[in-house]
This record gives sequence, structure tokens and C-alpha cells, in this order.
Amino acid sequence: MSTDPLVVFTPSGKRGHFPVGTPILTAARQLGVDLDSVCGGRGICSKCQITPSYGEFAKHGVMVSDGALSEWNSVEERYKSKRGLIDGRRLGCQATVQGDVVIDVPPESQVHKQVVRKRAEARDIVMNPSTKLYYVEVAEPDMHDPSGDLERLVAAIEADWGITNIHADLHILQDLQPVLRKGAWKVTVAIHLGDDENAPRIMHIWPGYYEGAVYGLAVDLGSTTIAAHLCDLTSGDVVASSGIMNPQIRFGEDLMSRVSYGMMNPGGAGEMTQAVREGMNALFTQIATEAEIDKGLIVDAVFVCNPVMHHLLLGIDPFELGQAPFALATSNALRMRADDLDLNIHPSARIYLLPCIAGHVGADAAAVALSEAPDKSDDLVLVVDVGTNAEILLGNRDMVLACSSPTGPAFEGAQITAGQRAAPGAIERVEIDPTTKEPRFRIIGVDMWSDEDGFEAAAAGTGITGICGSGIIEAIAEMRLAGVLDASGLIGNAAQTGTGRCVPDGRTHAYLLHDGTAAGGPRITITNPDIRAIQMAKAALYSGARLLMDKFGADTVDRVVLAGAFGAHISSKHAMVLGMIPDAPLDKVTSAGNAAGTGARIALLNRDARGEIEETVRRIHKVETAIEPRFQEHFVNASAIPNSADTFPILNGIVDLPDVSFNTGGEAEGGRRRRRRA
Amino acid sequence: MSTDPLVVFTPSGKRGHFPVGTPILTAARQLGVDLDSVCGGRGICSKCQITPSYGEFAKHGVMVSDGALSEWNSVEERYKSKRGLIDGRRLGCQATVQGDVVIDVPPESQVHKQVVRKRAEARDIVMNPSTKLYYVEVAEPDMHDPSGDLERLVAAIEADWGITNIHADLHILQDLQPVLRKGAWKVTVAIHLGDDENAPRIMHIWPGYYEGAVYGLAVDLGSTTIAAHLCDLTSGDVVASSGIMNPQIRFGEDLMSRVSYGMMNPGGAGEMTQAVREGMNALFTQIATEAEIDKGLIVDAVFVCNPVMHHLLLGIDPFELGQAPFALATSNALRMRADDLDLNIHPSARIYLLPCIAGHVGADAAAVALSEAPDKSDDLVLVVDVGTNAEILLGNRDMVLACSSPTGPAFEGAQITAGQRAAPGAIERVEIDPTTKEPRFRIIGVDMWSDEDGFEAAAAGTGITGICGSGIIEAIAEMRLAGVLDASGLIGNAAQTGTGRCVPDGRTHAYLLHDGTAAGGPRITITNPDIRAIQMAKAALYSGARLLMDKFGADTVDRVVLAGAFGAHISSKHAMVLGMIPDAPLDKVTSAGNAAGTGARIALLNRDARGEIEETVRRIHKVETAIEPRFQEHFVNASAIPNSADTFPILNGIVDLPDVSFNTGGEAEGGRRRRRRA
Repeated sequence: MSTDPLVVFTPSGKRGHFPVGTPILTAARQLGVDLDSVCGGRGICSKCQITPSYGEFAKHGVMVSDGALSEWNSVEERYKSKRGLIDGRRLGCQATVQGDVVIDVPPESQVHKQVVRKRAEARDIVMNPSTKLYYVEVAEPDMHDPSGDLERLVAAIEADWGITNIHADLHILQDLQPVLRKGAWKVTVAIHLGDDENAPRIMHIWPGYYEGAVYGLAVDLGSTTIAAHLCDLTSGDVVASSGIMNPQIRFGEDLMSRVSYGMMNPGGAGEMTQAVREGMNALFTQIATEAEIDKGLIVDAVFVCNPVMHHLLLGIDPFELGQAPFALATSNALRMRADDLDLNIHPSARIYLLPCIAGHVGADAAAVALSEAPDKSDDLVLVVDVGTNAEILLGNRDMVLACSSPTGPAFEGAQITAGQRAAPGAIERVEIDPTTKEPRFRIIGVDMWSDEDGFEAAAAGTGITGICGSGIIEAIAEMRLAGVLDASGLIGNAAQTGTGRCVPDGRTHAYLLHDGTAAGGPRITITNPDIRAIQMAKAALYSGARLLMDKFGADTVDRVVLAGAFGAHISSKHAMVLGMIPDAPLDKVTSAGNAAGTGARIALLNRDARGEIEETVRRIHKVETAIEPRFQEHFVNASAIPNSADTFPILNGIVDLPDVSFNTGGEAEGGRRRRRRA
Repeated sequence: MSTDPLVVFTPSGKRGHFPVGTPILTAARQLGVDLDSVCGGRGICSKCQITPSYGEFAKHGVMVSDGALSEWNSVEERYKSKRGLIDGRRLGCQATVQGDVVIDVPPESQVHKQVVRKRAEARDIVMNPSTKLYYVEVAEPDMHDPSGDLERLVAAIEADWGITNIHADLHILQDLQPVLRKGAWKVTVAIHLGDDENAPRIMHIWPGYYEGAVYGLAVDLGSTTIAAHLCDLTSGDVVASSGIMNPQIRFGEDLMSRVSYGMMNPGGAGEMTQAVREGMNALFTQIATEAEIDKGLIVDAVFVCNPVMHHLLLGIDPFELGQAPFALATSNALRMRADDLDLNIHPSARIYLLPCIAGHVGADAAAVALSEAPDKSDDLVLVVDVGTNAEILLGNRDMVLACSSPTGPAFEGAQITAGQRAAPGAIERVEIDPTTKEPRFRIIGVDMWSDEDGFEAAAAGTGITGICGSGIIEAIAEMRLAGVLDASGLIGNAAQTGTGRCVPDGRTHAYLLHDGTAAGGPRITITNPDIRAIQMAKAALYSGARLLMDKFGADTVDRVVLAGAFGAHISSKHAMVLGMIPDAPLDKVTSAGNAAGTGARIALLNRDARGEIEETVRRIHKVETAIEPRFQEHFVNASAIPNSADTFPILNGIVDLPDVSFNTGGEAEGGRRRRRRA
């Protein structure tokens, strides 16, 4: 047994004996303890701060005496006086082992620290970025043994940090000689650590020790909006977030109209490519300005987007995505440089695009898979990203399936008589009294219900302007629960429902949610065509999910995750009454927020996650709804509210769905559906 | 022992037994016989042509009967009728084994064919380019198993050609979908096979079978001229060669004046970078026009140049190269893309720069080393590339040394009274009768000596305009041999030499080579300052070589190779009389022509040669003449003609060097030299 002192590291529990005089950093490295250092133990960067613990540690079987570490040396003293050091902290590269000791590595001293995600069920992100900073001291040129400045820099990095086969971009070569001399042969370099396509590369070089950070962008390139998070690549912190409208909207609101624009107009695809890249550059300028950093410090960026946006970003005409067999030009993950895409960040910033799953299931769905990890789930999880196209994932550790389903824009308030985007004044929540059939509601921007005192005054600022996506879901579900709407999707008349709120509307009826005409505002009704639009959308969503359940061989799912901004605002109970999602316990229906954006952030902060999602996507079973015979059958069943075939037993245990039918025989469509159900 | 028929391939001698019905191409692949195919055995490309031999082959122990190969099939018949086939040839992918057979693979059917070099001592170049063509048939998209078009293309290449980890540049992705559909899922791709820095990449794609070639450039970027060879990357043929003046000349004739221009003028280095890149683009347009090819088919380019040109091409300020310690920004070989250097060839054409050996010994010297391979020489070889800076290599299999020596421009006719560049009308050869001291000469453009009948008429077209580098060497050596010039470099007067051609010229004398004044032409003399200039230049050259011999521990060399355009024109005897090069048998002094350009061509045509020269350069011992104490001593000795210390015994066995001395005591310099020699 060694007579050298014992060093125990927490929280890792790693331990070993080291000769008296061994720096703690050295001991940590030899044991593989995750203790950061940028300067390689030269007492410059202070990233290797540790906290020694003293006294008796029965758990570790060690007694730590006062003299277990060396006295403070001049480097530590100078650092503390100039920059300050938390009480009890030491620099791991300066403090040396003198006796048995227990050393705690605080989270901020760990390279692979965890970025904590707010949701209970989500895994934390382990920091492992593609680009890291290293401080090195470079040998001066020697006429007796001539070699290039770059070669001596590379040799120093290899010797100190063990990184091999390092190359440098041309702009590094152009800056190298003055920077080395300005730093008196001491420099800090940012190195992209490479991947299966590229060798490690020096991205940037600063004279001396560079105290700043380098940054990365996680970009969610949507059809409507482009959102980006700017992250510190060392801490993992989001230092700024920003978004703009996708400038491509002027070529078409939805994806298929953009594909058509490209088909109808020579050079049209190129115009859209230019527009989105210009928009991206405007966004990057905006976010860098907000964070008060130089755009040139953004050295990495991860993009997630649907297949059409993916192709248009890359300058590929999305023509083939507009028709069967929906062939992607490329489905694998892509790695390129910022200047390949004319992006004005660091000139050789690395760009990573997540893989696409299929012609309709893009890198955004892959990012959702990375964030929500159905492939690591013990129970069977259904992940739904609701947008104009719904991407649907179903699976567990054994198998994951994916499809997309064309829900259309109804969930976003489009095609709805009183529909509007979610904005102040929009009705977002609705309740209808099952006895009186009277509604009450809440609007965005006012923190009370419409039947509460003071609501009118509070709402005066914005007015009551319309109904947004989550509002329409609740309104229709409440109408169904209150018995003013039957399972086939027909609204009853005043006589059938016993309320004057059911008013004639052409050949069908509408439910009057709010009449603001007296105050000069709009009359907000839910019409039968509105119900039809939502029925189509939710049937598309449900039948996609149901198809995956068939393929998986499952009749039920254990839990449901709603991703996307829309998913964050809808009430799971109402969504289930509508039959948007399969029957499940309400507490097993959760919202993941912008899971695609989170997936992009994970891929940005952890390079291993890139290989991981590429492998996951390869293993995902892709299902193309357009060619699946059962999809149509599921769609017809799912047109009923909640469903004409699936029984929703859990939902029926919570709510009472009135068994009403307003078909008077005069309406062919409702009649057909009744017959089928009978 | 196998009862399957025996197949013997010539010239490789590889042999094996194969079942009846095996295509010859398959047999060749299994045995590792070098038989080309671009279409993978589909009877399209006809690259796999072979010649079966019939009859008794005692050497191979085989009797080949008439039915040894299958009958001609429809593919071969169609090919022959449409495209023609040399008598006796078959397509290796169509003809199958039916009995024992001897198969000859003609050179044009070998992938790794040899490009024969004209010089006896030079090794042939084995074809193995970085970029090759492959024909593949790609699976169509399948909605049941969605994948990107690129991924199916890559899978086809992997399956047919065994190339893994293939990527594609963005412009390939942009063209991919229409090209695949135009070619009905059959395409030809040009693939860069990758290196230690880059994974294999698809460079270009054509619908169907592409019958054309792809090209590469071997570029010799000199201070004065830029020369390029355009090579077919399959055959290795040089399809066009062209050159232009380096547009940087306007910033300074020689390298150091360009370095100063960069120091004196803010942005000056950038201007020079832009100038050389623009010049290069003009040259590339010129050479592609001459060869009648699309510049976009140039997918590879190799550059060789001295360190200052190297840095200026890359956009690196050469400031550090102008002062000790002459630090290169980078010395290793560099790989980049054409667009990194703003070169208008194929947008992602690969650029390869050979490594630099030291701050004064550049990629051009490395290219000379690759062409002349001193590291593979059994005997001790001195390789000298003569220019304004001479690069000198000395070595054999055991060790190679390198240095450079500042010869200045005298060898190119500059600083010489009647000097001029090699052009029609310039005196290029000189003989002086040792008895009469009368000269005769030849001029560039006239194929007779000046004392022959008809010379005057023949020379009338150009006139006799001056004397070029090789002419001045011969003139001075002949003056030394004729006894009108002494070992110290003094020209004797008329009395001392007994010829009126030795005329007073200020405080010294000059030798009158030609008086054209009667005909309105110049009076061409060799003056004592001319002698001094050549003495300085040749002393620099010789003392560099002598220093390397010291370091090597050798007093003599076995052979001398003169590289560069200048080396191709000088007479080895006269060079030795002058003491430019060490004493050696005259038949062991050879000219390698533009060895740097040849080295570039080797690196272009054979990718393995790149790794080879990188390794060789790492092993070369670099000697910096500026800090070697013995260099000065060698220089002083080498100022004498031929040398005041080295005795040149072989030379003295061939020629008679008159032991004259024209020092009259009045000329301090000549006097000093005499004293030292005594």
C-alpha cells in the first residue's frame, strides 16, 4: 500500500495516492476528474478552483489535517488580491498535496458541467461544446531548426493538451505572426475539436490569456419565425434570445405556397434562399447587439428546421418536396462553414444542421427527438409538435416511429371566423356552464375571467378582439361538454340546446361567445364551419398518432408530450375532449415548450449529442401517412368529437360527454357520420 | 489443386484460378491486378480493355486454346461497332473465363499507369490522382424507406467502389436532384479521395456516363513568371502549358523589394496578394482557353513557390521573412479550396501547397526534392536550383541537407554591362581561341557560330543585342581558359595578354567580345565589374554547396543536378571552370530542367507523393547559411576562379588553367586575393 497521501475528489468519489508536492490539478488529471483549466496549470485562468475540506471523513476513511495542502503561494495571493477568490477556494494548479485531503470540485470548475433544464422530466445538458479555449506558450523560431510559427503553435497544443492532427483556417495563418509576437509567444486559441468529416481546426487566436468567451447560436428556423439563442460555449448560459419573422413570408404563408413560388418563378428558390439568409444575418446582428458581443466571437451554430426550410437555407430548390415521393436532396446531418451560407458571424464558424427524418419530418423533429428522447423512455411516449404540419414521434427504448400529418393552420386561429394570432385581446381560455350554457372567458393580457368584477375595465385597453388557437380548442371542447355540440360536430339550435346563444348561421348554427357590438367591438361566434376546420386539423393529428400506435402494436400510450409554442398553451383536458390526442391520464400530458429549439441548444452545447441524434434518426422508423391505407380510416374516425371508434375510457372517467345528436336529417354530412357510428 | 481455369495477367504476372464464367474484370479485381473501370463493369466506359493471348506459354506453364474466353456478346459488339476497338482487344467486364488464359493489360487500361519522364535518370510518375471518376446507378427514392438522394448516391458509391465516409460540397447538393433525374438515376461523379485533413468529397456530378476528363493544374509560382501545366487527371498527359509574368513585378523586381513594399505601404501586402491571385486567374483562363476546356473541370491544383510568394499567395504579410530569424507563418504542406484563394476554377477545387523547407528554402525547393529525389539516391548528389536565390540540396539515402544562398540576379544577365534576358539576339555560347585570344559566339535564334559563313545574314533579323546568363558564364570561363583573366578575377591588359581585345575600361580592363558599332549595333564587352558580379554570385552558390558538404562530411560529390531554366542552358564544363559547382566528372553534371514544375506535376498526379515529400521535408536537415561561421570562409575562397582552396582535380585533368596573374600592385583587391592564395 502506498505511503503517499490520499486525495479524494468529490462529487466524483475518485481517489488516489500522490507524492507530496503534486498539484491538485495534476492529481485530478491523472484520475480523470473533471477539473477545468484553460491555461494548462500556469495560474492564469483560475478555472481550476477547488475547495479543500478539513476534518474527519468517515465516509472516505480519511482525516484531513490543517496542513493537507501547501501554503498559499505568490500566484494564488496575487490572483486573490487582484481578482478575488471565494472563501475556502484554492487554485488547483498551485495548491499541492501535503497530506491526505478531500477536494471538492465546484460545478463552475467542471468542464462537463450540467446545464439544468427547468422541466422535471427533462434531462440536464452536459457541457461538451465543439469549440474550446486553450492557453499555450509557443517556442520561438530557431534558425538552427527552422519551422513555421503555426507548426510550433500546433506542437505546443499537442504537448499541453493532447490534441492531434490540428489544422488552421487561412485567416488564422494571416493573423498568426503578429498575434504570436504581440502576446510574446503566449496565446489563447479557440479550437474546433473536429468530427468525422473535419480534422480539429484553430478557429481564432488571441495574444496572451484571453479572458472572454466564445459563443454559439442555436437557431430554430421556422416557416413563420426564426428564433435564436446565443449561448456562452463555456458556461452553457443563454446570454441572449431573439426572434424575427421569416422574411420568406412574402413568398407564401405556408410551405407549399413557397414550394410553388419556386416552381412558378425562375430563380424563385434562389430569391427565397437569399431572403432567409439575409433575415438570419439581421437576427444575428440583433442578438449580438443585445448581448453586447462581437459577432466574430460566434464560432458555432446549430440549425433546426423543417425540410422545406432546410433546403431553402442551403440553396436547394425544394421542388421535389412538393410531390411524391417527397425526396430530400440529403437527409443526413450536415457540417459546413458560415461563409458557405453567407452568414456574417465568425468567418469559419462551424454550422451544424441536424438530420432530417423524412421528406415531411425534418431536422426540427430530430431536434424534438433529441430534447425529449423518446428513444430513452421506459414508458411509451407520444411526442407531438403542433404546427401547420404536425410532427409526431412515438416510442420507447425499444423502437421509435415518426410521421408527419398535415394539420393546416386552423390551430393557429387561421380559417376560423373570429380567429386571430395569440395577441393581447384574444380569447385564450373558455368555460361554458353545462346547465345555463352561458360562457365565461379570459383574454390575453387580462388576469381575470370575463364574469369577474373589473374585467370590463381591464379589457378596455385591448378590447376583446377575437379568439386564438388555445381559445378555440377550449371553446369547442366546452361546447361539447355543455351539450351544445354533438359528437359529429354539429351545433344544436336554440330549441335543441335550450340556449339563445345557439343562433342560426346560414344552413347551420353558431354559438355566440361574446357580443361586443354594443361597445363597438366584434361579435365573436363559433360557427359550424369553424368546428369543421378544427375537426379536420385534429383528425389529421390524431390519425397520425393512431397510425404510429398501430405500427408499434399499442392501443394506448403511457404519456403525451406536447411540443411547440402552441402545445405550451393548450389545456390537456380540452385537447383530449376534442380527441386531438389519445386517451391518457391528464397528469401524463405535459408541455415541452419549444422542444426543437431546446434540441438545437443541446446539439450546440454537447458535441456527442450530434452523433447521438444522428444514430437515433437512423434507427427511427419512418411512416409516410400518405401511402398508409389505415390513415384514411383513422382520419374518418377521428373526425368525430372525440372519436367514433376509440372509446377514451380515462377521459370518460373524468368528464361527462353528453350523448346528444343534432342531426335533423337535413344535413347530409352529419347524417352520414351518424350512420357510420351507429 | 483447383480444377478451375487458370488466369495469368501480364505484365504483373499475377495469376489465379477462377470458375468458368468469371468476368476478366472480376478476376483482375480479386487478384489486385491494376485494371481500370469507371462504370463498375457495366460495359459502358470501355476502360477495362484487355488483350488475350493464345497458344503455348511455357513461361507461364499454360496452353491457351481458342475458346479460352467467352464469345463476343452484344455489349462488346455494340461497343465495337459504335466506338471501335483495337484488333485483339476485349472488354474485361464482358469477356468471361472459359479455359486457361493469359491476359495482357495494356498501359492505357491501368489506373496506376506510368507517365514516362524524358530524362534517363528520372523516375517515371505513377498515376494516382486525388480525384477520380466513378459511374454509379442510384436507388430511386422509396416512400416506405425515406432517405435523401445524396445518401442513396453515397450508398451506391460505397457498395460499388468501397469508398467510405463520403461527403458532398454544398453546390453538389444544389445540383443533385435535377442531375439524378436527368440521368435516370445513373450518374458519373468526380470524387476527391480525401487526406488526413478532409474526408472524401464529391466534387462534381454528371447525368449518365460522363466521357470527358477532369483536370488538374501544376503551378510554378515564381517571383518573375508564373507557369502552369494543365494535366488530364486520368491519362496524366499535359494538355496545355502556359506562363505569364508575375504581376507583382510592379511592386518590386526581387523578393526583398516586395517584402519592403509591404513594410512601407499600409495594405501593400494585400495589394500584392490580390495582384498575384488576379494574375493566376488570368493564366488559368488562358490555359483553359488554349486547351479548349471548361475551367470548371479543373478540380485539383498544386502550387510550388518560394516562401515569400507562398505567403503573398496566401494573404500572409511576408514581413517576418525579411529579417532574422526568417520565421515562416507555416512550413507544413497546406490543403485548401480554390475559393479560399479566390481562384476561378472549380468552386471547390482542392489546392495543395507543398511544404516549405525553411524561411529561405521554399515549396519550390521541396518540389525539386520530390522530382530529383536526393533522398532515394545511392550516390551523393548535389541539386542546385539556380535563380536570384539558389536553393541547394545535398544528400543520398542516408541524409539530405538543404540551404539557400543569395546569388543575386547576375546569372540572369542583370548587373552585367551588356547583360540581357535570354531572348533572340543574345549571345548564349562563347569560345575563345587560347592562342589568338579571338572569340566566336552564337546567338539565340541563329543556328551557327559567328565565324561561320552566313552568320551575319542570319543574325541581321535580330541583331546581336547583348549577352545572356549562359553566355556570360561561358565568356568568363573561356577568358580564364584563354589566359586573359587570372584566378583572382582580374582581366589583363593588351600587353599582358597579347591581344588588342583587352581594352582599358576605367581603372581596369575589359574584353571586347563583339563590336557592332560599325553596323549600328552595340559594342559588347565583358568588364571587370561584370567579372566581380559573377564572382559574387558564383561564390554564393559554391559556398552554400561547400557548407552542406562540410555538414555531410564529404569533400566531393558523386553527381550534380542543375535545376531551373538557367541550369538547362549552362555548359557544365564552363560552370566548373568558373567554380560555380564542385569538381565532378562532366558526365555526372546534368540538367533537370524545371524540376520544381515537375515536382508540382508529380504531386498533382500522385496523391501518395504528397505524403512522401512531406515526410522527406521533415527529415531534411536545414542549414541557415547566415549563421554558419564557415560560410564566409568558403565564400572568400570561392571568389577565386575556380577556387583558392579547393583544387578541382577532375577539372584540371580535362582543361588547362593558365597560371597567370595580372595584379600590378595598383589594385588592392586583386592583390589581397593573391596574398591569401600564396
